[in-house]
Amino acid sequence: MRCAAAVLPDDPGTLPFEQWVQRVGARFEDAAERMLPPVDLTPTRLHEAMRYAVLTGGKRVRPLLVYAAGEVTSAEEEALDRTALAVEYVHAYSLVHDDMPCMDNDVLRRGKATVHVAFDEATAMLAGDALQAEAFKVLSDGGLPATQTASLMRELAHASGTEGMCGGQAIDLAAVGKSLTLPELERMHRMKTGALLRGSVLMGALSGQAALLTECTREALARYGEAIGLAFQVVDDLLDVEASTASLGKTAGKDAAQGKPTYASLLGIDAARAWSLRLRAQALTAIDGLGTRATRLRELADFIVCRSH
Amino acid sequence: MRCAAAVLPDDPGTLPFEQWVQRVGARFEDAAERMLPPVDLTPTRLHEAMRYAVLTGGKRVRPLLVYAAGEVTSAEEEALDRTALAVEYVHAYSLVHDDMPCMDNDVLRRGKATVHVAFDEATAMLAGDALQAEAFKVLSDGGLPATQTASLMRELAHASGTEGMCGGQAIDLAAVGKSLTLPELERMHRMKTGALLRGSVLMGALSGQAALLTECTREALARYGEAIGLAFQVVDDLLDVEASTASLGKTAGKDAAQGKPTYASLLGIDAARAWSLRLRAQALTAIDGLGTRATRLRELADFIVCRSH
Repeated sequence: MRCAAAVLPDDPGTLPFEQWVQRVGARFEDAAERMLPPVDLTPTRLHEAMRYAVLTGGKRVRPLLVYAAGEVTSAEEEALDRTALAVEYVHAYSLVHDDMPCMDNDVLRRGKATVHVAFDEATAMLAGDALQAEAFKVLSDGGLPATQTASLMRELAHASGTEGMCGGQAIDLAAVGKSLTLPELERMHRMKTGALLRGSVLMGALSGQAALLTECTREALARYGEAIGLAFQVVDDLLDVEASTASLGKTAGKDAAQGKPTYASLLGIDAARAWSLRLRAQALTAIDGLGTRATRLRELADFIVCRSH
Repeated sequence: MRCAAAVLPDDPGTLPFEQWVQRVGARFEDAAERMLPPVDLTPTRLHEAMRYAVLTGGKRVRPLLVYAAGEVTSAEEEALDRTALAVEYVHAYSLVHDDMPCMDNDVLRRGKATVHVAFDEATAMLAGDALQAEAFKVLSDGGLPATQTASLMRELAHASGTEGMCGGQAIDLAAVGKSLTLPELERMHRMKTGALLRGSVLMGALSGQAALLTECTREALARYGEAIGLAFQVVDDLLDVEASTASLGKTAGKDAAQGKPTYASLLGIDAARAWSLRLRAQALTAIDGLGTRATRLRELADFIVCRSH
């Protein structure tokens, strides 16, 4: 329970959501700018490509989930900076590799040339590889107690690997041009994007006070993360159908053009929209018992489901 | 000091070196076979490609260094299995990505088709990505005390990333067709191959009893690892010139064909050979004070410098 006397005028907890997003967003960009390898250090081109991959914007949904979940366990913001960088590095590396000619062959990302176009394919592959290592490095150098560091790295490894992101991408790859059932599509997305979104929530909470992360709280956060992770993808599918390339900052309509099954194509737009709202309700129900410490997570659930890009 | 009564007939410490290599080598293959994701689990093609990348042989120099260094700190072999898998997964992923058309475009590795030839480019890229995550996963799930787990993961992240393997590969990439000075070539190799070989030695020792890994021992092992890491590369360059494709199991003479600077081309064959022997002497001097616990490391120094493939 927050003590009334402790609420200062600039206390993050009192900021309206949009201002909180701006504040932690700016904090994250600043941390990334400082902690990515500098461009004046050899190998300069690799470092440039890594910085380009991370610093060219994006919604920063995973970092926002990290900072929001950190409030549940009163995490220090310095610790959350590193956790947020780690999950965003993994996300960024997956986009760099995903955009390459042998995968999606996409030239536009966040309104700018993709890394293999702005640099070259070999540099893009290496920059992705190095960002994955950097994700584990930024966690390992954080100076948290070893139990926390080991837990954070374990969570990230599981969210990124064969049971998580990479596994989901492999299923996605095998599914192009095929018809998937709804359960198959759901499984793919729970792995491909859901695992790292869920991981962001759990890792944000793991960055704080262990005593505040009871088994019950951890389970609530896992359920929240799973529901919101899937909701994110359902909304992504809807936006791919409804939005323009300009507002998305990436090529719109490419799922359909590539013959990829989506929630929109399997369920229809109205049913997919309704489902995203049910998933949001599930996410909110899961963290119902966490009180005001979970306010930002509730706001983020709305932000993720109601976004227009 | 080993107690005489504890030396059993099949005590690993009493085995001749070749038999020890066979024993821990078989142990490693068995662990890899058991612990890599199974092919009957979805996504099957990803798992097949990961297993193909790791299980198609190789000299297993990094695992051997792990098991040998583990003797210095009386590490349990179960812990060493995981550490050996972690470093070999990272090595295997780097080969898979390195062989791809946008990098070295090689079709032959260990006498078999490279992963992107046997499967496809997208699967090769994903298998490499997933193997890097798997390396951290296998360490994080080992059940060692958190301080050890965190140290192992930290060492691996630093050896693999921009200051280590990936950074060295980026320097290598930028060097094709250029003339490097000897210090530049040395720096590149210290990062590209040296960092993970040094990391294998340190991680082997970190897998054992912390009380046996004094600062002095750790520094000795680091110096050994650096010298032997560089010696390995000098010998590799010599073999690339001298050996045939059949005995190497990979395309011979490709460094020269790609206009890559090598120790052989910069120093000449005789001077490069002499340098590899000086590096071996440096490695042996570094661990001079470690007594019989470092016997396997000494034998490995000879093995690495005097190998013919």
